[in-house]
Amino acid sequence: MDRVYLYDTTLRDGQQTQGVQFSTEEKVQIARALDALGVDYVEGGWPGANPTDSAFFEALPKLDATLTAFGMTKRVGRSAENDDVLAAVVNAGTPAVCLVGKTHDFHVTDALGVTLEDNVAAIGDSVRHLVQNGREALFDAEHFFDGYKANPGYALDCLRAAMEAGARWIVLCDTNGGTLPEEIGRITGEVIAAGVPGDRLGIHTHNDTETAVAGSLAAVMAGARQVQGTLNGLGERCGNANLVSLIPTLMLKEPYASLFETGITQDALAGLTRTSRLLDEILNRVPQKQAAYVGASAFAHKAGLHASAIAKDPATYEHVDPGVVGNARIIPMSNQAGQSNLRKRLADAGLEVDPGDPALGRILDVVKAREADGYAYDTAQASFELLARRELGLLPAFFEVKRYRVTVERRKNKYDRMVSLSEAVVVVKVGDEKKLSVSESMDESGNDRGPVNALSKALAKDLGPYQQAIEDLRLVDFKVRITQGGTEAVTRVIIDSEDGKGRRWSTVGVSANLVDASFEALLDAITWKLVRDGATPV
Amino acid sequence: MDRVYLYDTTLRDGQQTQGVQFSTEEKVQIARALDALGVDYVEGGWPGANPTDSAFFEALPKLDATLTAFGMTKRVGRSAENDDVLAAVVNAGTPAVCLVGKTHDFHVTDALGVTLEDNVAAIGDSVRHLVQNGREALFDAEHFFDGYKANPGYALDCLRAAMEAGARWIVLCDTNGGTLPEEIGRITGEVIAAGVPGDRLGIHTHNDTETAVAGSLAAVMAGARQVQGTLNGLGERCGNANLVSLIPTLMLKEPYASLFETGITQDALAGLTRTSRLLDEILNRVPQKQAAYVGASAFAHKAGLHASAIAKDPATYEHVDPGVVGNARIIPMSNQAGQSNLRKRLADAGLEVDPGDPALGRILDVVKAREADGYAYDTAQASFELLARRELGLLPAFFEVKRYRVTVERRKNKYDRMVSLSEAVVVVKVGDEKKLSVSESMDESGNDRGPVNALSKALAKDLGPYQQAIEDLRLVDFKVRITQGGTEAVTRVIIDSEDGKGRRWSTVGVSANLVDASFEALLDAITWKLVRDGATPV
Repeated sequence: MDRVYLYDTTLRDGQQTQGVQFSTEEKVQIARALDALGVDYVEGGWPGANPTDSAFFEALPKLDATLTAFGMTKRVGRSAENDDVLAAVVNAGTPAVCLVGKTHDFHVTDALGVTLEDNVAAIGDSVRHLVQNGREALFDAEHFFDGYKANPGYALDCLRAAMEAGARWIVLCDTNGGTLPEEIGRITGEVIAAGVPGDRLGIHTHNDTETAVAGSLAAVMAGARQVQGTLNGLGERCGNANLVSLIPTLMLKEPYASLFETGITQDALAGLTRTSRLLDEILNRVPQKQAAYVGASAFAHKAGLHASAIAKDPATYEHVDPGVVGNARIIPMSNQAGQSNLRKRLADAGLEVDPGDPALGRILDVVKAREADGYAYDTAQASFELLARRELGLLPAFFEVKRYRVTVERRKNKYDRMVSLSEAVVVVKVGDEKKLSVSESMDESGNDRGPVNALSKALAKDLGPYQQAIEDLRLVDFKVRITQGGTEAVTRVIIDSEDGKGRRWSTVGVSANLVDASFEALLDAITWKLVRDGATPV
Repeated sequence: MDRVYLYDTTLRDGQQTQGVQFSTEEKVQIARALDALGVDYVEGGWPGANPTDSAFFEALPKLDATLTAFGMTKRVGRSAENDDVLAAVVNAGTPAVCLVGKTHDFHVTDALGVTLEDNVAAIGDSVRHLVQNGREALFDAEHFFDGYKANPGYALDCLRAAMEAGARWIVLCDTNGGTLPEEIGRITGEVIAAGVPGDRLGIHTHNDTETAVAGSLAAVMAGARQVQGTLNGLGERCGNANLVSLIPTLMLKEPYASLFETGITQDALAGLTRTSRLLDEILNRVPQKQAAYVGASAFAHKAGLHASAIAKDPATYEHVDPGVVGNARIIPMSNQAGQSNLRKRLADAGLEVDPGDPALGRILDVVKAREADGYAYDTAQASFELLARRELGLLPAFFEVKRYRVTVERRKNKYDRMVSLSEAVVVVKVGDEKKLSVSESMDESGNDRGPVNALSKALAKDLGPYQQAIEDLRLVDFKVRITQGGTEAVTRVIIDSEDGKGRRWSTVGVSANLVDASFEALLDAITWKLVRDGATPV
């Protein structure tokens, strides 16, 4: 089997994504996750281009993967030894260096403004300089496909200059993302026929026509043996080829699985979903539900017909086993769902209900009515479980909220600075006892954490006999969307909670009033925890 | 040129997306948008399968596109005339009907539990029944590619049964999304060679390996002449082939543009971005920034090197002109940006700044420091403009906020029902005049709209001489994310506002306190409007 090498550029090209800005610590965290996954190369950034990237290379994490610095070929008119940009890249001290250089004649003469010959010489000199400094050298052939179509002879001369100077890899880049897979495959084949061996060829695609993954696969099929991409397809404009999709396809799908091997183990592949979500967590992004292989919806069977077939044999509607990539099958709840979906979903929550139980129809009706009001139960599974328990008569009344009041104030303090403070009063009845709790939004460091924080603290401050069960409850995420509830715009709040046992659950609240919606979701979060921990109602 | 037909299934397969549930009115709105775009077929849903779909067909919108009802082939053991599922589909009264049927032997015998011969007969009888009722008949060959790989003879027999019964289109479906583009192309070619003409063949792919678009293109290249897909790639699991990506590729990219024509005009193509965003608006989804062609980032040039090349010639980093699909080029602001990006962005806001102006460096520093605190200026362009104006000395002090207080209360009313009410007091100084305004969160219908609404009303209630300028300001969207600000979790609020002139702008606020963050974004929204309308400071 031929070896295919995986080159990750999340930390460099991925950082070109609009809205993405990694800190140095985050870069180190992502590099370690990539290393645990088993990619062959981690491109860390462009030393000297910005403070974050420089600091990352100074920290220089120890990796099994080959840490690679990115830069560009030397400027025409100075020697490789005297080029400051090249010097910064070499001084980063990484085992490998990747230099981007131009191969499209129009870019050389018009964007760079140098002669075609000088550019070829600059490529050769720069790569030679890296090799003389003991580095593994890679050459990113910018705009290669457009360049090849415009002037194939010149584009190939640029590749040969890098190859003859000792570049380990020549990477064909479709920089503006405009080349379609068939053409990528054909041109890659022609490059190999022209004398650049496939085992020194890489492919770097962008997703501007939504075909970056297919373009990479076409290049591999044509003979390229290195694939460049990013986690979750981050990258300039529409993003780079998504390694999270490419890795399982190369490892699991035919004809790739039989023809090629990668550096990734089956064990590491089972961590793929976690790695993908870790990146979203670092970016504070909601993970793409529909992402191939790793999305929360990737193995979600919503259509009633599909769900019942899946129950007989998962192979009917799943092209791979979700567990292999660390994902899981789900049967989402919604008014599209039939009773067989519903029973499966209830069973997942530990609730066995007989097929004929009239509660099933009632639950479907309530879900339907509440989704029309703006609730979303296929995300907020814990709230769904509570709703079902209520209809099944399996939800104890642990306590009752009588009223609450939250105040947010912003004014000048005695030092003439504007400061804010929130205060919440919550009145609950636990058994026969009425309990008034008050909390403010200040944390240990004296910072105001806002009204939902104050409310959450006041609510959890004194629930009497339940206090112990909720001590380890922690709010980990909070999402708000304006949505349609009937004919009105309402606010939907989804709260993700976690406890000391590492369990994580989502609850939903809907109201035109943001604080109310949050309070409803908070209440569900506490109630679910009491149910799951088997608290005894007073 | 060969005609390629576009078949949209957003209203049927798109509705299988986890979290998506269209109302009948929304279905009508989407059908009209698809019709304006110019697709050939609009699949409206499955009449009889759920109340929303049935109501949609009862409303039966008048379209230029061929409205199509979806259903399945008749059950074995009853005649086509007596099959209730088939009857519901025929009774929908659409000019075309698409029936899904099995073509994979394992599914026929194991999932359906009937003989292979009976299934073939059911396909023929069902299609013949449609034709006899004067309908254009389509046959969706479910799991065709898996079926063909397992038992090519049987899979082809199923297609022939539909064809001989008079089906206008035989659609090869990769139902579980597991077939890669090369294989789709090869098998489509083999089907044509086996006698099903390409101009009666359609392709229906899913995105489970992130190659649905490429798979559809491969089928067209092999001879298929109908493409099924959805807007924004909605659909079961990872979604269907994304028509929003396929349409511009078929119309603009070679070799497709020269070989094929579609029913979509260049004018309609210029509405593609708007159509894509309309769907997200209906779904209350944040549009995918990185979507091919239509994403807000699709023509965003963040890397400093790219941005300066783009300024010389857009063709350097753009594979198509963004205007052709109704999108626009943007140079996002971030700490990755160089001064040339910044000057371009300022010029877009009508601020011409000389290359040597020291304010440029200051603006970049402030952007960098504030993005580290959690702000995001590449989304909130209006807040960016205000920040720049402040540094350039071009931001008048219109008014000053001295303090505010918001109270949210929830308690029982006199009818013993839990009700909420928010009240906000805002104190501003306009010139020498101090103004106290109070508003509550109740709207005209007596519904509580929450604390940010109360605050927004109190702030806009009496700004003295500026009152006229802000009368037509309207808050249209409100997004909240928990994000990292330095070492602390903070809340970022993005507010989208609109005015009577149809202008729309985004502002940002960041604080650990949600209400504070909202207030900051509201303040920016008002200030931007005053600046843009040329209000004279008191």
